[in-house]
Amino acid sequence: MADPEPTRRTASNLELISATLQTGTMQQARRMLNALHPAEIAHLLESMPPAQRELVWELVDPEYDGEVLLHLGDEVRQSLIQGMDADELVQAAHSLDVDDLADLIQDLPAAVLQETLEGMDKQRRSRLEAVLSYPEDSAGGLMDTDTVTVRADVTLDVVLRYLRLRGALPDLTDKLIVVNRYDKYLGLLGLSELLTQDPEHTVAEVMDTSSSAIEAATPAHEVAKIFQDRDLISAPVINESGVLLGRITIDDVVDVIREQADHSVMGRAGLSEDEDIFAPVILSSRRRAVWLGINLATAFLASWVIGLFEGTIERSVALAVLMPIVASMGGIAGSQTLTLVVRGLALDQVNRGNLRWIFSKEIAVGAINGLLWALVVALIALIWFDSLRIGGIIALAMIINLFAAAVVGVTLPPLLRRFGVDPAIAGSVILTTFTDVIGYASFLGLATVVLFSL
Amino acid sequence: MADPEPTRRTASNLELISATLQTGTMQQARRMLNALHPAEIAHLLESMPPAQRELVWELVDPEYDGEVLLHLGDEVRQSLIQGMDADELVQAAHSLDVDDLADLIQDLPAAVLQETLEGMDKQRRSRLEAVLSYPEDSAGGLMDTDTVTVRADVTLDVVLRYLRLRGALPDLTDKLIVVNRYDKYLGLLGLSELLTQDPEHTVAEVMDTSSSAIEAATPAHEVAKIFQDRDLISAPVINESGVLLGRITIDDVVDVIREQADHSVMGRAGLSEDEDIFAPVILSSRRRAVWLGINLATAFLASWVIGLFEGTIERSVALAVLMPIVASMGGIAGSQTLTLVVRGLALDQVNRGNLRWIFSKEIAVGAINGLLWALVVALIALIWFDSLRIGGIIALAMIINLFAAAVVGVTLPPLLRRFGVDPAIAGSVILTTFTDVIGYASFLGLATVVLFSL
Repeated sequence: MADPEPTRRTASNLELISATLQTGTMQQARRMLNALHPAEIAHLLESMPPAQRELVWELVDPEYDGEVLLHLGDEVRQSLIQGMDADELVQAAHSLDVDDLADLIQDLPAAVLQETLEGMDKQRRSRLEAVLSYPEDSAGGLMDTDTVTVRADVTLDVVLRYLRLRGALPDLTDKLIVVNRYDKYLGLLGLSELLTQDPEHTVAEVMDTSSSAIEAATPAHEVAKIFQDRDLISAPVINESGVLLGRITIDDVVDVIREQADHSVMGRAGLSEDEDIFAPVILSSRRRAVWLGINLATAFLASWVIGLFEGTIERSVALAVLMPIVASMGGIAGSQTLTLVVRGLALDQVNRGNLRWIFSKEIAVGAINGLLWALVVALIALIWFDSLRIGGIIALAMIINLFAAAVVGVTLPPLLRRFGVDPAIAGSVILTTFTDVIGYASFLGLATVVLFSL
Repeated sequence: MADPEPTRRTASNLELISATLQTGTMQQARRMLNALHPAEIAHLLESMPPAQRELVWELVDPEYDGEVLLHLGDEVRQSLIQGMDADELVQAAHSLDVDDLADLIQDLPAAVLQETLEGMDKQRRSRLEAVLSYPEDSAGGLMDTDTVTVRADVTLDVVLRYLRLRGALPDLTDKLIVVNRYDKYLGLLGLSELLTQDPEHTVAEVMDTSSSAIEAATPAHEVAKIFQDRDLISAPVINESGVLLGRITIDDVVDVIREQADHSVMGRAGLSEDEDIFAPVILSSRRRAVWLGINLATAFLASWVIGLFEGTIERSVALAVLMPIVASMGGIAGSQTLTLVVRGLALDQVNRGNLRWIFSKEIAVGAINGLLWALVVALIALIWFDSLRIGGIIALAMIINLFAAAVVGVTLPPLLRRFGVDPAIAGSVILTTFTDVIGYASFLGLATVVLFSL
């Protein structure tokens, strides 16, 4: 019996294949590649520039194509699908579970989709239709329809014999689902209970009725929360009348969690969560240009504010030297508040009831840090430009901007959300526009008042 | 048999309890609270200001204390532990699994720890010691030692009878672990195989030897990757000689994934991933002050660069008006590159082999967007200030800064990583320092050359 090797060496496996592709024969590379798990092949493909990627994709055994495509980010997946012929795609589609196929289906060309649907048996097609009838980011869109159900009134012994007749269970089956004869969800029977309880008991006596099923319309992020809170491996999905539709498994939930995380990190830089780091130059340039354009508009807004005070700056160039400090500190303080509130909203920690508490707290924190750093900045400005006036002006402007940053940081995310805008993406651009404008305006405005009237 | 209600209403449950706390009796609130899952109680506590939080914590049934503490962020957990007396803490510790207790242990006061260890039976203590002997963020630190093992040479029927005698299996047991008599890991026997295969088969005939075990020293983020790639629910953990130490379950892996995500999002704003949104004002102010201080230093560096060109700005105030645009566009373009490369590094997509490819690509994207926006900015500047010179200067400075942003964005993350600094946290501050300094210096430097010498 083979001594299994620790999975730790995966990373170097990938390096090895990259090296073989460069120096060894195609045959060697093909063999090594197809010995990997589809997810690892997907990872390898995502770590390669386009030319090499297509080469390696050719080497992947067609029977793994579906699984590999599934593990790829949207962008890389689409680019590879474009290079495949219809037969390959139909074959790939046939190899997948219904919930996975539902994920892939929007990337398939119409002709392939047609052929795939026609090649399906009736049961599989109606299951696919059930999954597709719910939004992709809902419990219904995440579910698989391949459930194993039992009745409540039979004994465990009957269930055990049924399973043995039935043969292999679907992947990640940790529980059987108990339904009545109208397919209404009643409870769950864990495999572990089935194995350890007295076989003479009925399912009704042993089953768990405390875990509730998830309604198909539940949004994906709530499903993720339920799975995390309750440490679930799988959960039944029902329609609004309580009829069992399918089940969601933890692997799909992990994907949801990972995508949410990527979305916050990438969205902040105006990138999509599926951005391919090896995307063609023209495509990348075009997409990033949009974000740069938005930021240019906000930068010109700040410049316009500065332009209003040209006369003031002419009288004291020190103002031009110091003004970015006020703007920058406001942006940093504001983004701390914003980040906390955006996360609090995403985790449902922040609601109408406690928003006022958070508001007061952030104002207090802004005031304390405003005062502290106003003092430090004033002192440095005083020493640098030997001017008490400038020291006082920058101190006051800092306090104003850190205060404003706290106000905007707390109020902006719930406001954006109400207008259907994702605060994780738009929040930071809007916030820094505010802190830039308020920073420049308060500093240069105060300077105008002090320098021209005193 | 009760008709289970869909879990969808969890969110409003929480709101209901909040309302009951304010308007109803303590008795009502206590009953509602303790009907929740510990994770939901933890979530409720995290969504409350400190005063209310302590009140609710008092209402939690002591038998749930341990589980609730476990589901809290480090910061909230520590603040609640401080208010508990030794008896309560010892009781809470006793109610936990070994791997969970290992997570909690560093937060416990020395006296409680002592008493907890003394109250343990020998087996539990030695298991705890095994978990504690590995770093918290390694496979050994994540593992639980509560495994169910079987021998390869027995029949499935023997295993079935053994399980029935043994009684309840540990939570999230989807597979039994097959070991030899020296406890060396041999393979896995899924409950689902156990239930569906012929009971006359031996374990050796049915077991899965293709899944490998995870070495205890494997870092947590690699464990997370293995679980995600292979859709695992649990995986055995072995030492370097292949002896079984314990197993890791998906719930702990999901926590790792969530913490990694929080770390990137929060770290970027200089916040810890466990930051309590309801932390006291003084504590929050002090912690955020550090980050503001670091940023102030970098802002003064930029100001100092501007200060070098005071004479130039005096001759043309338009420069002061336009200079933030160059700095800001560099920062935005650079953070797009940085975000992609940091994520690529975290996912092991970026390595020495393809870094050069990414470098060339990002330079090209930077050049294209530099040229594009240089033209736009030059045109606007030309119209605004009616000066071809200023238009030309800002265009050239933009191209220089977007080029520099691409160079810094690609090279900084691997460099920081080599020096043991987390690029997700420090990357963005260092990058914008570069783009500010280079932006101001190139724009004002070019202006000095053009205005003073032409």
